[in-house]
Amino acid sequence: MATEAVPGNTRENVATAIAVLKQQFGDRLQTGEAICRQHGHTLTWVPNQPPDAVVWPESTEEVQQIVKVAATHRVPLIPFGAGTSLEGHVNAPFGGISVDMSRMNRVLQVNERDLDCHVQAGVSRKQINDYLRDMGLFFPIDPGAEDATLGGMASTRASGTNAVRYGTMRENVLNLTAVMPDGSVVRTARRARKSAAGYDLTRLLIGAEGTLGIITELTVRLYGIPEVILAAVCPFKTLEGACNAVIQSIQLGLGVARMELLDEMQIYAVNNYSKTNFDECPTLFLEFHGTQVSARDQVEQFKEIALAEGAIRFDWAEKEEDRRRLWKARHDAYWAVKSTWPGHEVLATDVCVPISRLAECVVETQKDIKEHGLIAPIVGHVGDGNFHTSPVLAANDPAARAKMEGFLERLAARAISMDGTCTGEHGIGQGKMKYLKSELGSGLEVMRQIKRALDPLNIMNPGKIVALTE
Amino acid sequence: MATEAVPGNTRENVATAIAVLKQQFGDRLQTGEAICRQHGHTLTWVPNQPPDAVVWPESTEEVQQIVKVAATHRVPLIPFGAGTSLEGHVNAPFGGISVDMSRMNRVLQVNERDLDCHVQAGVSRKQINDYLRDMGLFFPIDPGAEDATLGGMASTRASGTNAVRYGTMRENVLNLTAVMPDGSVVRTARRARKSAAGYDLTRLLIGAEGTLGIITELTVRLYGIPEVILAAVCPFKTLEGACNAVIQSIQLGLGVARMELLDEMQIYAVNNYSKTNFDECPTLFLEFHGTQVSARDQVEQFKEIALAEGAIRFDWAEKEEDRRRLWKARHDAYWAVKSTWPGHEVLATDVCVPISRLAECVVETQKDIKEHGLIAPIVGHVGDGNFHTSPVLAANDPAARAKMEGFLERLAARAISMDGTCTGEHGIGQGKMKYLKSELGSGLEVMRQIKRALDPLNIMNPGKIVALTE
Repeated sequence: MATEAVPGNTRENVATAIAVLKQQFGDRLQTGEAICRQHGHTLTWVPNQPPDAVVWPESTEEVQQIVKVAATHRVPLIPFGAGTSLEGHVNAPFGGISVDMSRMNRVLQVNERDLDCHVQAGVSRKQINDYLRDMGLFFPIDPGAEDATLGGMASTRASGTNAVRYGTMRENVLNLTAVMPDGSVVRTARRARKSAAGYDLTRLLIGAEGTLGIITELTVRLYGIPEVILAAVCPFKTLEGACNAVIQSIQLGLGVARMELLDEMQIYAVNNYSKTNFDECPTLFLEFHGTQVSARDQVEQFKEIALAEGAIRFDWAEKEEDRRRLWKARHDAYWAVKSTWPGHEVLATDVCVPISRLAECVVETQKDIKEHGLIAPIVGHVGDGNFHTSPVLAANDPAARAKMEGFLERLAARAISMDGTCTGEHGIGQGKMKYLKSELGSGLEVMRQIKRALDPLNIMNPGKIVALTE
Repeated sequence: MATEAVPGNTRENVATAIAVLKQQFGDRLQTGEAICRQHGHTLTWVPNQPPDAVVWPESTEEVQQIVKVAATHRVPLIPFGAGTSLEGHVNAPFGGISVDMSRMNRVLQVNERDLDCHVQAGVSRKQINDYLRDMGLFFPIDPGAEDATLGGMASTRASGTNAVRYGTMRENVLNLTAVMPDGSVVRTARRARKSAAGYDLTRLLIGAEGTLGIITELTVRLYGIPEVILAAVCPFKTLEGACNAVIQSIQLGLGVARMELLDEMQIYAVNNYSKTNFDECPTLFLEFHGTQVSARDQVEQFKEIALAEGAIRFDWAEKEEDRRRLWKARHDAYWAVKSTWPGHEVLATDVCVPISRLAECVVETQKDIKEHGLIAPIVGHVGDGNFHTSPVLAANDPAARAKMEGFLERLAARAISMDGTCTGEHGIGQGKMKYLKSELGSGLEVMRQIKRALDPLNIMNPGKIVALTE
C-alpha cells in the first residue's frame, strides 16, 4: 500500500533519508518509539500511526533541506505543530518523518502601526498574545488548544469563539512562507492588507493541512485590545429563541465578538466541573468589544432582542475576573465532559450549517442522540452556524464504537443535506475524508489535480484530505 | 505565436468551433467586427485585441457546452462581465471567443436569515442592491463601475470604498459555481459561513481572472442596511496627518465604513467637475455605519483623533442628500479628471502598501509626478493602504506615453519595495504581468504549475496573469 501511494517509498529509502538527516540535525532528529508515537498522537479515536522519525528544524532553510532529502528519497513528511488536531492530521499512515515545528517559535517582527506581525510557524497563540499584550494588541483566533501553533492553525483553517467578529485564519493571514514539495521557498504574498496580484496562494495553503507544502513563517493580522470588554450569560426557554436572537443581532450589525451556545447537557457538565450554577437550559455565553459607549450599546441592543426571543434572564459582567471565569468554563467544556463521565473516551467533532438551519440541525442531532441512547453534549459558535458535539464513549467497546460511527456519519450527512459542511473548523485529516465527496462532488477532482501538480511524488502529508486514487 | 501559446489553435479550428456554436446559439453568437472590438474593449491604454466571436450563454449548462467545444477545437475563451476591467483582462491576444455573461443575470435565491444570496455571474452590483433594498439588505463591495458584474468582480478580486469595514470579494463570496477547463462543473463550497473541508477552491478562483475556469454562479454575503449612516468631510494640513488619523481609528477598532483620501490635485478636479468647494488640501471622505448610538460614537471618536492630527475641520452630514452628493463626487473622481483635462487620455492604476508606509508612498509618488511634469491626481482607500492615481496623458503622443510608462513602472516598484503589491484591486490582466515576478518571485512558478494542471490546453483566458513560457 505504501509504495503505491508514495512511489519509490521503500524501507531502505526511509532509512537512508533518516541517516542523511541525522548527520545534519544530530540530536534534533529522533527515532525513539515513544517520541514517534507521541507525534502520531491525535485527540480523536483515529488509531495512532507513528512516523519513523521526528526532526526539529529551526529555520525555513532547514525545512528546505529536509524537503530536498525527502524528495530525493521519496519519504513522506508530516508537519507537526502542537499535535492538537482532531482528525488524524499528524498520523503517518505510510511512515515517514514528522517535522516538529516547535523550535521555530520566534516572533520575527511586530508592525504596530500596520496591526500585523511576522512569526515563525511554531509560535503558539498563547505565546503571541503574551508577547503582544503590553503593546495593547491581540491576535483573535482561539481554537480550543491554548498551545496550538499559528502554522498549525493556518494549516487547518482554524477559527474559534471570536470568528463571528474577527474572521477565521482565512481572513487573518496576510502571507505565508512555505517550502513547497519541490524544495522551493515561496512567500505567497506581501504585507499589504489586500492584493489583486495573481492566484491566492495564501488561501490555497490555509486549510491544506500540510499536503501542498510546509508553512514555515506567516504574517498575521492583529487588533487593538478593545477599550471595553463586557460579557454576558443568557439562558433561553428554547434553542430556537437563542438562535433567533443571534440572527437578529447579526442582521443589525451589532458586531458581537463572541456568541457561544451550550445545550442543556453541556451546561450540566460545565456546572459539574466548574462548580457553576447556570440554569440547565440552552444558554448563550456572549462577549461585547468596543468603546465605553459602543460596547454598552451592544449590550442594551442584544438584551432587548434576547428578551423578546424568550431569554429567561440576561446577566452581564464587566469585572475581568467574572468574565475570565465565564470563558474558562466555556473553554473547559471538553474537560467538563471528560470529568463528568469518567473512564470514558470523549470524541470531538464539528459541523457547520447556514445559520437559518442551525436550530433545526441541533434539535435533530439532540433527537438522534436521545434515540440512540448516546451522551453527546453540544456547544456551538452559533454566529457562524458551527457547532461541536463531544460524544462520550465506553472505552474499548466495539459495539459502542460502531454506534458512535453511525452517529458521526448521520451528523455529517445531516449538515451536508442542509447545505452545510462536514467540518467548520476541525478539518478533514483522515477522519473526514469519506464525507468530502458527498460534500463537494467534482470539486474533489480539482483538489486532486492541484495536489498532483504541486506534489507529484506525494511526499507531503500523504493520505490526508484527498486520496489520489479511488 | 498563437499556436505556441495555445497548442492546436489554428484558424481552421477557430472557424469550426464558431460554426458548431453558431448552430446551437443562433443569434446569441456574433462575429461582427464592431461587437468583437467592443468585447476587447478596455478602459486603459492596453491596445484592443478583439476576439473572433462573442457568445451569450444563459445557463451554467450552456457555458459547459461552450467550454467543451472550445476544448475540442483548442480555442481560447475570454469571460466577459461588464468590460470595466482596467488591465486588458478581456482582450483576446490569441483570438478566440468572448463569453459574454450579461444574459446570465438572474437572482436565483435570497436567504434573508442567512444574509446571503445566490446569483448568476452576470448580475451587476447595482442590480443586486436594487433587488435587496426593500428587504433592508445590501451587498457592500463597490468598485468604481456601477454595472460591474458579481462574476467579474469575483474574477478580479474587486473591492472598493467599503472594504476597510466589510472586506473584499475574497471575504464576501461563500461559494462559486464554475465550469472548469475540462468542462466539469464545480461548486467550490456549500453555503455555510465557514468550512475547513479541503482546499479553498473558492479563493483559488477569486482573482484568477478567468484563467482557471469560468464563474457562472456565486453565493455572496449580505449585510443589513445600517440603522444610521453618517458621512463626513475632513481636510488636513498634511497627508501624514490624514493617514495617522486613519491608523489610530483602526487601532481603536472603530469600524469606520469608508475612509477615502483625496489629494490636492484630485480635490481640484472634483471641485471643478462637481461644483463643490472643498479646501484644496489632503482630505478624507468618511462614512460611519451603526446604530443611533454607535454611529455617533464613531463620529465623536474620529473627530477627536482627526483634530489632534491636524484636521482643519470636521464637517459631518446626516441628511441622505448631503451624503449622496459627497459620495457621488467621490465616485465621479475619474470623470472629474477627464473633464478637467479635456482632450486627454486618462489612465487608472492602483497599488497597495502596508498602511504605515502609505503617507510616504503617496508623498514620493507626488514628488515623482511633479519632477516629471505629469498630471496625476491621487485618491485612496486609505484604510487598506490602497491608492489610485489617474495620470492624464496627451492623446496620441508617443513621448508622453513613454514618460507615463516610466511613471507606472516606478510606482509599482515603489509599492513593492515597501512590501506592498503592484495592484490592490485592479488585477494583473496583461498590463501588470511584468511586475508580478518582482513581487512574488518563486510564487509565480507555483501559479504556473496550477495553471498547467487545471488548464493543460491553455484555453482559459490565455496571456493573462502568468505566461506559461518565459
